[in-house]
Amino acid sequence: MLNNWTWAPLVASAITVVLIIVLAFVVRGIAHRVITRVVNRAATGGSITSRFRKGAATDGIDVLLHERRKQRAETMGSVLKHIASIVILGTAVLTVLDRLTIPIAPLLTSVGILGVAVGFGAQELVKDFIAGMFMLLEDQYGVGDVIDAGAAVGTVEAVTLRVTRLRDIDGRVWYVRNGTITRVGNESQGWSRAYVDVPVAYDADVVGVRVLLEQVAEEVWADSELRESKIVEQPQVFGVEQLSDSALVFRLSAKTLPSAQAEVGRELRLRVKTALDTAGIPMVAVI
Amino acid sequence: MLNNWTWAPLVASAITVVLIIVLAFVVRGIAHRVITRVVNRAATGGSITSRFRKGAATDGIDVLLHERRKQRAETMGSVLKHIASIVILGTAVLTVLDRLTIPIAPLLTSVGILGVAVGFGAQELVKDFIAGMFMLLEDQYGVGDVIDAGAAVGTVEAVTLRVTRLRDIDGRVWYVRNGTITRVGNESQGWSRAYVDVPVAYDADVVGVRVLLEQVAEEVWADSELRESKIVEQPQVFGVEQLSDSALVFRLSAKTLPSAQAEVGRELRLRVKTALDTAGIPMVAVI
Amino acid sequence: MLNNWTWAPLVASAITVVLIIVLAFVVRGIAHRVITRVVNRAATGGSITSRFRKGAATDGIDVLLHERRKQRAETMGSVLKHIASIVILGTAVLTVLDRLTIPIAPLLTSVGILGVAVGFGAQELVKDFIAGMFMLLEDQYGVGDVIDAGAAVGTVEAVTLRVTRLRDIDGRVWYVRNGTITRVGNESQGWSRAYVDVPVAYDADVVGVRVLLEQVAEEVWADSELRESKIVEQPQVFGVEQLSDSALVFRLSAKTLPSAQAEVGRELRLRVKTALDTAGIPMVAVI
Amino acid sequence: MLNNWTWAPLVASAITVVLIIVLAFVVRGIAHRVITRVVNRAATGGSITSRFRKGAATDGIDVLLHERRKQRAETMGSVLKHIASIVILGTAVLTVLDRLTIPIAPLLTSVGILGVAVGFGAQELVKDFIAGMFMLLEDQYGVGDVIDAGAAVGTVEAVTLRVTRLRDIDGRVWYVRNGTITRVGNESQGWSRAYVDVPVAYDADVVGVRVLLEQVAEEVWADSELRESKIVEQPQVFGVEQLSDSALVFRLSAKTLPSAQAEVGRELRLRVKTALDTAGIPMVAVI
Amino acid sequence: MLNNWTWAPLVASAITVVLIIVLAFVVRGIAHRVITRVVNRAATGGSITSRFRKGAATDGIDVLLHERRKQRAETMGSVLKHIASIVILGTAVLTVLDRLTIPIAPLLTSVGILGVAVGFGAQELVKDFIAGMFMLLEDQYGVGDVIDAGAAVGTVEAVTLRVTRLRDIDGRVWYVRNGTITRVGNESQGWSRAYVDVPVAYDADVVGVRVLLEQVAEEVWADSELRESKIVEQPQVFGVEQLSDSALVFRLSAKTLPSAQAEVGRELRLRVKTALDTAGIPMVAVI
Amino acid sequence: MLNNWTWAPLVASAITVVLIIVLAFVVRGIAHRVITRVVNRAATGGSITSRFRKGAATDGIDVLLHERRKQRAETMGSVLKHIASIVILGTAVLTVLDRLTIPIAPLLTSVGILGVAVGFGAQELVKDFIAGMFMLLEDQYGVGDVIDAGAAVGTVEAVTLRVTRLRDIDGRVWYVRNGTITRVGNESQGWSRAYVDVPVAYDADVVGVRVLLEQVAEEVWADSELRESKIVEQPQVFGVEQLSDSALVFRLSAKTLPSAQAEVGRELRLRVKTALDTAGIPMVAVI
Amino acid sequence: MLNNWTWAPLVASAITVVLIIVLAFVVRGIAHRVITRVVNRAATGGSITSRFRKGAATDGIDVLLHERRKQRAETMGSVLKHIASIVILGTAVLTVLDRLTIPIAPLLTSVGILGVAVGFGAQELVKDFIAGMFMLLEDQYGVGDVIDAGAAVGTVEAVTLRVTRLRDIDGRVWYVRNGTITRVGNESQGWSRAYVDVPVAYDADVVGVRVLLEQVAEEVWADSELRESKIVEQPQVFGVEQLSDSALVFRLSAKTLPSAQAEVGRELRLRVKTALDTAGIPMVAVI
Repeated sequence: MLNNWTWAPLVASAITVVLIIVLAFVVRGIAHRVITRVVNRAATGGSITSRFRKGAATDGIDVLLHERRKQRAETMGSVLKHIASIVILGTAVLTVLDRLTIPIAPLLTSVGILGVAVGFGAQELVKDFIAGMFMLLEDQYGVGDVIDAGAAVGTVEAVTLRVTRLRDIDGRVWYVRNGTITRVGNESQGWSRAYVDVPVAYDADVVGVRVLLEQVAEEVWADSELRESKIVEQPQVFGVEQLSDSALVFRLSAKTLPSAQAEVGRELRLRVKTALDTAGIPMVAVI
Repeated sequence: MLNNWTWAPLVASAITVVLIIVLAFVVRGIAHRVITRVVNRAATGGSITSRFRKGAATDGIDVLLHERRKQRAETMGSVLKHIASIVILGTAVLTVLDRLTIPIAPLLTSVGILGVAVGFGAQELVKDFIAGMFMLLEDQYGVGDVIDAGAAVGTVEAVTLRVTRLRDIDGRVWYVRNGTITRVGNESQGWSRAYVDVPVAYDADVVGVRVLLEQVAEEVWADSELRESKIVEQPQVFGVEQLSDSALVFRLSAKTLPSAQAEVGRELRLRVKTALDTAGIPMVAVI
Repeated sequence: MLNNWTWAPLVASAITVVLIIVLAFVVRGIAHRVITRVVNRAATGGSITSRFRKGAATDGIDVLLHERRKQRAETMGSVLKHIASIVILGTAVLTVLDRLTIPIAPLLTSVGILGVAVGFGAQELVKDFIAGMFMLLEDQYGVGDVIDAGAAVGTVEAVTLRVTRLRDIDGRVWYVRNGTITRVGNESQGWSRAYVDVPVAYDADVVGVRVLLEQVAEEVWADSELRESKIVEQPQVFGVEQLSDSALVFRLSAKTLPSAQAEVGRELRLRVKTALDTAGIPMVAVI
Repeated sequence: MLNNWTWAPLVASAITVVLIIVLAFVVRGIAHRVITRVVNRAATGGSITSRFRKGAATDGIDVLLHERRKQRAETMGSVLKHIASIVILGTAVLTVLDRLTIPIAPLLTSVGILGVAVGFGAQELVKDFIAGMFMLLEDQYGVGDVIDAGAAVGTVEAVTLRVTRLRDIDGRVWYVRNGTITRVGNESQGWSRAYVDVPVAYDADVVGVRVLLEQVAEEVWADSELRESKIVEQPQVFGVEQLSDSALVFRLSAKTLPSAQAEVGRELRLRVKTALDTAGIPMVAVI
Repeated sequence: MLNNWTWAPLVASAITVVLIIVLAFVVRGIAHRVITRVVNRAATGGSITSRFRKGAATDGIDVLLHERRKQRAETMGSVLKHIASIVILGTAVLTVLDRLTIPIAPLLTSVGILGVAVGFGAQELVKDFIAGMFMLLEDQYGVGDVIDAGAAVGTVEAVTLRVTRLRDIDGRVWYVRNGTITRVGNESQGWSRAYVDVPVAYDADVVGVRVLLEQVAEEVWADSELRESKIVEQPQVFGVEQLSDSALVFRLSAKTLPSAQAEVGRELRLRVKTALDTAGIPMVAVI
Repeated sequence: MLNNWTWAPLVASAITVVLIIVLAFVVRGIAHRVITRVVNRAATGGSITSRFRKGAATDGIDVLLHERRKQRAETMGSVLKHIASIVILGTAVLTVLDRLTIPIAPLLTSVGILGVAVGFGAQELVKDFIAGMFMLLEDQYGVGDVIDAGAAVGTVEAVTLRVTRLRDIDGRVWYVRNGTITRVGNESQGWSRAYVDVPVAYDADVVGVRVLLEQVAEEVWADSELRESKIVEQPQVFGVEQLSDSALVFRLSAKTLPSAQAEVGRELRLRVKTALDTAGIPMVAVI
Repeated sequence: MLNNWTWAPLVASAITVVLIIVLAFVVRGIAHRVITRVVNRAATGGSITSRFRKGAATDGIDVLLHERRKQRAETMGSVLKHIASIVILGTAVLTVLDRLTIPIAPLLTSVGILGVAVGFGAQELVKDFIAGMFMLLEDQYGVGDVIDAGAAVGTVEAVTLRVTRLRDIDGRVWYVRNGTITRVGNESQGWSRAYVDVPVAYDADVVGVRVLLEQVAEEVWADSELRESKIVEQPQVFGVEQLSDSALVFRLSAKTLPSAQAEVGRELRLRVKTALDTAGIPMVAVI
């Protein structure tokens, strides 16, 4: 046995080990570069999943969006690079051990048993991260947006790959795991709509009320202050929305800037009330 | 050991490697072509799953549909080609490593452990994509349709393989993962129906009311403006739909163009109200 | 090594490969024939699962049913044949590669990893198809039936192995995945039943009301028009269904043709109302 | 290599193959017989799981039950025999291939991958069949019983291993998968109970009302027609079931034949009402 | 090859096979005895899981309980013995086949594929049995007890390892799978409690009402009939349980024998009502 | 072959077997001792998970707690020791069989197939035990505590590793599986709080009412009987808790001993009512 | 065989074993150090997941936070170090056994079977720990915060890796498993908001009411006591929030210190009520 112990295989092993390590770092470098490029392309809208996507006008805020995209790309790229490094260097270590004829089965067994035990429990974590990555990739929402995340509704304060932090209208801070968000409603994209329902008495003059409401709509649209900062379209008067035994319900609808619907609604309610009072048309109860 | 080191096996190995790589690219080319053909056939309605499908008339809009189909085919084909490339080239790489007697077990172990860990968490992602592919394949809805996706109701703004983007009536933008949509209701296919319930007093002349309502229905159908752009069939008068202690409830039903039911309903309500007023028949409360 | 390179094994290999391929096609042919026969037998009611099944009378519509069955058999057979072809030819390819001493482990590894990844996500798809196959096999519903699929209620417009397409009463088109339908209610098999609840005043003549209602029932049954096209049995008068402080509630029940219950109900309500009015018996409120 | 090609191993192989096939059919025959005996014993109540079971009296209908049991045994036995045949013959085929030194790994791989893919999706199917087998084995319900299956309530029209077909009171036909039925309520076993709540005025003579109700109960029990065909025990009068501010609520309870409770309830209500009227005791509102 | 065919190995094989079979039966015998002893010990309360358990007094019914325990021990032991027999004899058969150099891989493959396919679907079955075993072991309920099993409430009619059969108050028979019962409420252990809420007018004499109710409580306790067969403690009068605008709500509480609370409640209601009437204190409405 | 049959290997085998068995018992002894020590440390609060935990004052009841802890430690230790014994002795048996060149593959196969089949179904059981162990370890509740376990609310009567037995206020005994308790509310730790809402008329003297209520609070606190046995802090008067159209709602809040809140609430209600009556301030309805 | 028994391999084995053990401890030391550094960095905000996070101002309480972070880092590090030790030393033991040619397969089998059995059941445990680690890492809440954990709402009393202990407003102590908390609402971060809805009569002077409410808001803000300790911004008066038939609803909103909203709300309600009374504006019912 001992006369097998010549230098030749030892040298060969050493060379192999060095080659493996060098190769691992080269592959890791390539992987990192590929990730950087792919993530950047994805973040700037060139990905497959976003090809179909043509949304609301977002032209005037390109610089801000560009910044947000860059940040997103970095966040995602960082995670992917960590994963790639672990896989490549882990493979290299195992290969080296194998080449040096050090048995790796016990190590794999230990890690495997633990891995399975943890794997089951960690699925939710992986789900959160995947959900977070796609959320960032598709730019579903960002800091400052008002969103409905199902578990909580509020203004986004922070976005990470695992959780989204919101602050609701009562000041409560919510941590929502991304994987639990099956659908998101974003109130800060494009426009919102304010509704005002006006129940008038049954014997009211239908045409008269309609004309009155249309006057209110025009006044509102003519109001330069509202028009500039709140409303994006002249409010519309819908006809008899509901026909009950006691009331005819008319509806006013106004497209507003994102998240301005509450304020516009209050203004419209005030004006409609005043106009009806002036015209002597009473509003009635809807039971 | 060293005198085993002759050129013969080296040359054989090199030839094998080249052959494997060439073969891989040939197979990949074939796979891509097959995918293109299958996807095109599926998108144009020749697939198994759509053979049973004979829906509402969609003849006048063939060109638009053709365009939509082509786009769909490209989206789906692109994903399938990526998958095929990864499988074929991955196999080629592993085979080459194996032929060069480079141990691939460590690599497989690393990737395997990670794969299982991620696999569990990624099921939802795969579900989303599968759901998205079939949704596209079956053309369940497209951009511009008004759909009820369970989690949200609104107009489709964008469709990707993973999520569907809707905008609801309040201007809120919803991102709904395709895999969470177990059933879809599409309001923009074929026709919609408007209903108006008319509760008249208990001692009203049943036949008279019926005649009156039928007159309204005829007038509406005679109205050329409505007929051209909104209604697709003369409204029907149903008999006593409900028999309560205080009221006889009649029902008017009108088939309209898709998504026009709200508008037609308002018009019908207005006309019925006016006709009843003229005839002096009061409507009553339904508690 | 080179002097092992004789023609003998090469020829043997070639013969083996040809034999395998021929065998594969033969087996595939047999499999297809077996599938055709089994599916036909299943679709025409000879299967195990339908042996217990003896339903409503469906005699007069045998031809139509036969056609439906044939179509069903084709749909199912087509899928099963695809699956059989894939398994048999896939096995043949792997065997050939194995015989040619081409290593198939790398290929299996690639496909396996992908397979597991997709497998988890694709369960729902498989569930849908299995549910669809049994639904067809058991003929639970067909195009034109009015069904309650849980997620949506409406008239079936199309049936595929994966989804069922319904149109509800408002004209909305619903796509329901077959796997999500845990129970189906079919309103178009055999007969339906119309109910009319008649709340009469507490001090009414109980026997008199009962006689009156029975007269209405007889009149309805005597009406040749209704009898021919709507009602399949003389309506029954149930006794005091509910005993409240303010009213005695009688119930009329009529077996009708499938899906005709709404119309019959309207007719019954009208007639009961008229009869009670004539007899001077007031209906009262049920709070 | 060729001079190894003697007849000896060929003959040995042939003999082995024949032996294996013969053995397989013998084992299959034995398995079928064992199944028949076990299933028969189970169906006739000798199984472990039904040892504890001692239910309502079912003596007079032994012949009918015997028939039902025989049918059940056949249904179950048929499925088990199919499974046994598949396992035994499948094993025989694989063994033969193995003996002929035909590689079976590729076949197993193909089938295995498909098997796993389908396996996940088919769990629900297996669940349905297992649930169906136990339902039959335990005779939870049969054709003609009125059951509450959770998803639907109605009369059982057909029972298969996978689904149960019900027809509800409106004539709707329900297909309920056996695996989704976590609990079943059978209204057709032994007896049912009819309840009538009698709210009398607060200042009524408590003892008098009680006596009155007991008289009604006796009359009902004395009524030979009811006693023969509907009621199985003299109705009981419960005391003051509820003590509200406005009423004392008495309760009448009558054990009836299965599913006759509605009819008996109507009869009791009529009689109680008449008796109270005669005695001049008013019933009052329970808010 | 043939001259290897000597008697020596054949004899050795035969001896081995006989030894294996003998050993298997010996091990099976031992296993059965161990099971009997363990189950008996568990059923008589010596198990680990029941060490902490010290419940309501159950002394007077020791013989009955002993019988129930013995039955339970037999039911459980029977199942465990079946399982042990299958494992031990199965192992023996495989070992014999292995010793006779008959390949068992194909058999294992067939059984394995089927096993996995069924295994997923059968989990619920295993859950039911495990739940049933623990339920028996912990003696959670027995035939005749009134239990709330979540899915149904009623009197236990039969208990098996898989399902529990109940009959509810309307005479409906419920089959509830043991695995679906996450919590059980048993009304027949130790005692029950009857509550009577007494809403008196706002201006009533609080102390007087309290004294009155305490007199009622004493009378009830003094009533030898009730005391013997229904009530186990003198009823308690709680103070002002609820303070509304219109009423002061007092509460009477009485500990009764198991399941006698309804009857005792009726008796208490009657007596309280009579006492209040006598004292001229009106009860008032609680809205 | 036979001349290989010397005594040397036989003796070696025998020695090895003896060594293995001795070693197994030594390791088992060590494992048991380690478990005892770890469990004791954990039960007395030295574990990792309880390091952060600093709860309500529990000083005066140290002896009782010590006893409870000891019992807990024994319960847990006993289970862990059983598991350790099974693993260690099972390993020893397998090793011995292996050394004696007895094939263990068939045994493992049998046990494995059964293990997988049972494993899926037994997860719930394992969950229950794990939940039970942590519940004991963290001392979430003990016999005598009043807890809200979600599925049932009541007094703990017994705690085992698998189920918790409660008795609710109606005398019903509940068995709740520990694994189904996702959160526990314990009413018997530290203190409880009693609330009394006082709706006074709109035109009442706000300051006057407040002063009155504060007097009641002081009286209650001054009452030595209550103070000693029920209340742990002077009751607080909150301001106008609710501002409706018809009433001003004040709130009294009192910290009490655990589970004494109902009694204290009754006392407070009585006193507030008396005080308001004396002061002539009417309470009003809150609709 | 025996003459193979030379000292050389024995010595080699011994050296190897010693080397393995030394190596294991070295690796363990390195792992512990790496964990300490990573955890510290994560806890002090340098982790990937918290990079995006920029929340409410928390400057004045840096020291306290620093302490909390250190504690968190220790808790997490301790668990990770335990895991690393188990993996590394377990691997070392297996490797030593392997080197000494002691068969480890039986051990692995025993542990594996048990591991799988427990693994399924333990997933929830792992989920709880993972959730707990991220909760600590992201500092979602700490002892003393008022949180809404879904299952319970209250003040955090203790935080461990597995459960969070809360005490709710009634004094009940809740143990909530971290893995069941899908979203957390923290009321103690930054600020809270108090709302007061003021319904005034329909014919009230809209402008006058608004002015009145704004005066109240200014007074509140001017009140130095409130401003210092409760309110962080001058309260805002929203316009007509709701326009019903009977009332105009105004809303007052005030940003307060965390958890002070209830107290501020009470104060605002009192002041608004007083101001309206003084001004003679009645509040009205909102049905």
